[in-house]
Amino acid sequence: MPSDPGARGPSIDLNADVGEGFGPWPMGHDEALMAVASTVNIACGFHAGDPVVISKTIEAAVLARLAIGAHPGYPDREGFGRRELVMSPAELEASILYQVAAIAGMVEALGGKLVHVKAHGALYNRAAVDAGIAGAIARAVRQFSPDLVLFGPPRSELLAAAEAVGLRSAAEGFADRAYEADGSLRSRRREGALLTDPAAAAAQAVALARAGQVQTLCVHSDTPGAPEIARAVRSALEAAGFAVQPVAVDAPG
Amino acid sequence: MPSDPGARGPSIDLNADVGEGFGPWPMGHDEALMAVASTVNIACGFHAGDPVVISKTIEAAVLARLAIGAHPGYPDREGFGRRELVMSPAELEASILYQVAAIAGMVEALGGKLVHVKAHGALYNRAAVDAGIAGAIARAVRQFSPDLVLFGPPRSELLAAAEAVGLRSAAEGFADRAYEADGSLRSRRREGALLTDPAAAAAQAVALARAGQVQTLCVHSDTPGAPEIARAVRSALEAAGFAVQPVAVDAPG
Amino acid sequence: MPSDPGARGPSIDLNADVGEGFGPWPMGHDEALMAVASTVNIACGFHAGDPVVISKTIEAAVLARLAIGAHPGYPDREGFGRRELVMSPAELEASILYQVAAIAGMVEALGGKLVHVKAHGALYNRAAVDAGIAGAIARAVRQFSPDLVLFGPPRSELLAAAEAVGLRSAAEGFADRAYEADGSLRSRRREGALLTDPAAAAAQAVALARAGQVQTLCVHSDTPGAPEIARAVRSALEAAGFAVQPVAVDAPG
Amino acid sequence: MPSDPGARGPSIDLNADVGEGFGPWPMGHDEALMAVASTVNIACGFHAGDPVVISKTIEAAVLARLAIGAHPGYPDREGFGRRELVMSPAELEASILYQVAAIAGMVEALGGKLVHVKAHGALYNRAAVDAGIAGAIARAVRQFSPDLVLFGPPRSELLAAAEAVGLRSAAEGFADRAYEADGSLRSRRREGALLTDPAAAAAQAVALARAGQVQTLCVHSDTPGAPEIARAVRSALEAAGFAVQPVAVDAPG
Repeated sequence: MPSDPGARGPSIDLNADVGEGFGPWPMGHDEALMAVASTVNIACGFHAGDPVVISKTIEAAVLARLAIGAHPGYPDREGFGRRELVMSPAELEASILYQVAAIAGMVEALGGKLVHVKAHGALYNRAAVDAGIAGAIARAVRQFSPDLVLFGPPRSELLAAAEAVGLRSAAEGFADRAYEADGSLRSRRREGALLTDPAAAAAQAVALARAGQVQTLCVHSDTPGAPEIARAVRSALEAAGFAVQPVAVDAPG
Repeated sequence: MPSDPGARGPSIDLNADVGEGFGPWPMGHDEALMAVASTVNIACGFHAGDPVVISKTIEAAVLARLAIGAHPGYPDREGFGRRELVMSPAELEASILYQVAAIAGMVEALGGKLVHVKAHGALYNRAAVDAGIAGAIARAVRQFSPDLVLFGPPRSELLAAAEAVGLRSAAEGFADRAYEADGSLRSRRREGALLTDPAAAAAQAVALARAGQVQTLCVHSDTPGAPEIARAVRSALEAAGFAVQPVAVDAPG
Repeated sequence: MPSDPGARGPSIDLNADVGEGFGPWPMGHDEALMAVASTVNIACGFHAGDPVVISKTIEAAVLARLAIGAHPGYPDREGFGRRELVMSPAELEASILYQVAAIAGMVEALGGKLVHVKAHGALYNRAAVDAGIAGAIARAVRQFSPDLVLFGPPRSELLAAAEAVGLRSAAEGFADRAYEADGSLRSRRREGALLTDPAAAAAQAVALARAGQVQTLCVHSDTPGAPEIARAVRSALEAAGFAVQPVAVDAPG
Repeated sequence: MPSDPGARGPSIDLNADVGEGFGPWPMGHDEALMAVASTVNIACGFHAGDPVVISKTIEAAVLARLAIGAHPGYPDREGFGRRELVMSPAELEASILYQVAAIAGMVEALGGKLVHVKAHGALYNRAAVDAGIAGAIARAVRQFSPDLVLFGPPRSELLAAAEAVGLRSAAEGFADRAYEADGSLRSRRREGALLTDPAAAAAQAVALARAGQVQTLCVHSDTPGAPEIARAVRSALEAAGFAVQPVAVDAPG
C-alpha cells in the first residue's frame, strides 16, 4: 500500500494527536504541531476533547490543509484513555462508530473530509495484539465508510483486521517512543519510554522511514518538548530526502 | 410547509422520544411506541443514551421504517437534560453539531437517513423563547445539512430561527402534556402537567390536529402508561380521518 | 471472627446492594429488599448512585435500622462497574478513600454510622484474586477508619489484605449466584450464572450458612425476582434456625 | 466574628482555590500559592479535581499547615462549574453534603481537619443573591457539622443563610477581581474583570483589608500570573501591618 503518488523520491506521513484538551483544561501544543505535521488525529470526546475543542481543532486543521483523522479512545477521561477497560466487542463497535461519526460529520460540516481513524492509548495497544478488539474497531470503521484508512502498528492485529474487512491501512511508527528489541513499544510505565531529545527522535524517525515498514510517523503532543521534537523530525526527514505528506493520497485499489 | 403528499385527507405525524436508557438503566417503552409512532427522536448520548443504546435503537427504527431524528440535549445525564444549563451560543452550537453528527452518521451506517432534529427537555423549552439559543441550534443543524427539518413549538423562536437560516421546520404539539390558557406547556413542576388518561390525551391530540397549527404530535415515552396513551392517540387520530405519517415526505421547496 | 453475640443459636447476615439508581433512572427493589435484609451496601456515585439517590437511600436504611456499608466501584457508570478497568494501586486507593468518605460522612449527617465496606462488581472480583488491588482497597479503608469491616469472598486476597492491615472482615456468600465446583462464582457471562428460582436460592443460602464459612449472604437487587428471592432466603434461614442479623455486632478483638 | 486571636494588630486570611486539575490535565499553580496563602479551598471532584488530585492536594496542604476548606461546585466539569445549572434546593443540598463529606473524610484520613466551605464559580455567584440556593448550601454544611465556617461575599444571602442556621461565616473579598461601583464583582464576561497586575491586586487587597468588611481575601489560581499576584498581595498586606492567618482561629462563640 504505497502512499507515494509516483513522482520523485520516497514520502512519509507525519501525524500528531491533537484536540486533547477538555473544558477549561488545555493540553499539548496543537498550533506548533499543526505547523509541522501533515496529518492530525482528533480526539473524539471520550478520552479527551469536547464539542468546542473539537470544533476549534477541526477549523484549524482545515485551514492548515492537513489530512484529518478521528482518534477514538476508551470512555475514560480521568485516565485519558490510557487505562485498559474491558469492553465487549459489541460495546466497542458501537463506541467506535459513535466517535467516528461525530468527528466525520463535524469535519464535513466545517469544510473538510475525514480520511483515517487511529485508536488512542490503551485501546490502540490492546487492538495491536487482540484480534477480537481489532476486529471490532475495523468493522465499525468499515461500516461507517469503506474509504477510511485505519492506522496501526506494523504486523499488528489492527492491520490484519483492516485487511480482513477490506479497509486500507497505514503502518505507524513512533518518533518519540522507545522501541524494545522485539519491535514493540516500550511501556509508558517503564524508564526511558519517551524520547525527549529532539535529535534522538529525529534519528529514530529517519531510521524508521528508511526501513520502509511504516507509512506514517507519530509525534505525541504531550511529550515534553513536543514542538521542538516535531520540527527536528520533519527537518531530518526532509534532509534525508523524504517528502512529508499524508498517507493515502493514492486512489483506493 | 404541507406534510400531506397530495393524496386524500389530512395527515399528521406522531413522534416519540426513544433511546433514553443509559448503560445498565433502561427507560421507557421503545418497542411499544415504535409500533405506533411514525417518527422517533433518538437521544444522542449527552442527556441520555450511549453508543450501544443508540445503535440498538436505530436498528429497531430502521427495521420499523420510521422517520428518524436526532434528539440533542444539555450535557447533564444526572438531570436528564431537564435542568437549564447556561451555555453560550458558541458552546451550544458546537454541542448540537457534535450530537447531530454522531446520530446522523450512525443512522447512515445502519441503513437509514436522518430527517429531523428535535431539542430535548430544558433546551427545547429555552430555545422556544430565547432567540440566541434558538439561533445557535438552527445554525448548527443548518451547518450539518440544509435538508434536515427542525421541530419546535408553534410560533416559537425555534421555528423563527429555522426560517431565518433556511431550514424547513415542523410545529409540534404534545398529546400527553397539559397546555396553559396562553398556549404554553404547563411546567412539569406544576400539578397536572401530564395527561396520563389515554382518552384525555387522545382527545387533545385530535383537537390539536384539527386546529391545524401543528404538523407533528409527541407522546413521551416516560409518561406513565405511555404505550396505552400512544395507541389511544393513534386510534383516535385515524378515526378522525387523519393519516398518521412522517412530516417532510415532500421534497424541499 | 464470630458475629454471634453469644446468645442462642447461630446467626447470619443478609446483605443487599441498594441505591443503584442514577439521575432519572431507578434500579432494583430497594424498599422490598430493605424489608428483608439486615445489612445494605450503598453505591457511592462512581458506578451508580448520585447525591440525591444516596441521600434517600441512607434515610430509608437509617429508618429501617439496618447496618449500612459503602459499596465503592470502578468509575464507570456506563458499564455499571462490571467492566474491569486497570487502575494503579495509588489511583484505586484514592478512589476508595473518596467513595468511602463521601458515604460515611453522609451516613453520619443523616443519623447513622457506617459499619462496613464491600467492593462492587468487577472491582470485587478482581480484588478477590489480585493482592495488589486487594491491598489498595484494604489500605484505603483502614486509613479512613480502623473500625470498618471489609467484606469479601472466603479465602480471598481481600480477606487476606484486611487481616494484613488489621481490619476486621466478613466472608460473603451469594444466595442468587451459581458457584463453580472449585468454589468460585460462575461468571455473569456464562449460562446459569444467576439463581432466579427463590427456592433454589433459599436452599443455597441455607447450605452456605450451615457450612459455616461465610458470615454474610448477598442477594442482588437486580436479579430478576429479587424481592421474592430475598424473602424466600430469609424465611429459609430462619426456618433452619439462623438469626438474621448484622455482622460485627461484637466488639473488635 | 473577629479572626484576630487577641495579640497585636489586625489579621486577615489569604485563601486560594487549589486542586483544580482533573485526570491528565493540571491547572493552576498550587505549589506557589500554598507557599503564600494561609487557607486553601479544595475542589471536590464535581467541577474539578479527582480522587488522586484531591489526595495529593490535601497532603500538600496538611504538610504546609494551611487551613483547609471544601470548594464544592456544580456537577459540570466541561464548564468548570462556571455555567449556572438550575438545580432544586433538594438536589443541591444532597450535592453539597456529598462533596463536603468526601473532602472532610479524606482530610481527616490524611491527618488534617476541615475548617470551612466555600462554594465555587456560578454556584457561589448564585448563592450570593438567591436565598433558596444559599439556604440549601447552609443547611447541607450545618447538617454535616456545626463547626464549619461558610465563606461568602459581604452582605450576601450566603452569609445570611449561614447565620440563619447557626453557622459561623467569613466575608470574602477578591484581590484579583474588579469590583463594580455597587460593590458587586465584575462579571468574567466583561472587559477588565481580572486584575492581572500584581501591584493593582495588592493595592486592592490592602484597601479591602483596611475597610474591615472582609475576613478573608481570595487569589484565584487560574488568573494569569497568580503566583506573582499572591506574593505581592501577601507582602503588601504584611507591609500594611496585617498578620496573614486563617479565619476562625477563635473558638465558636
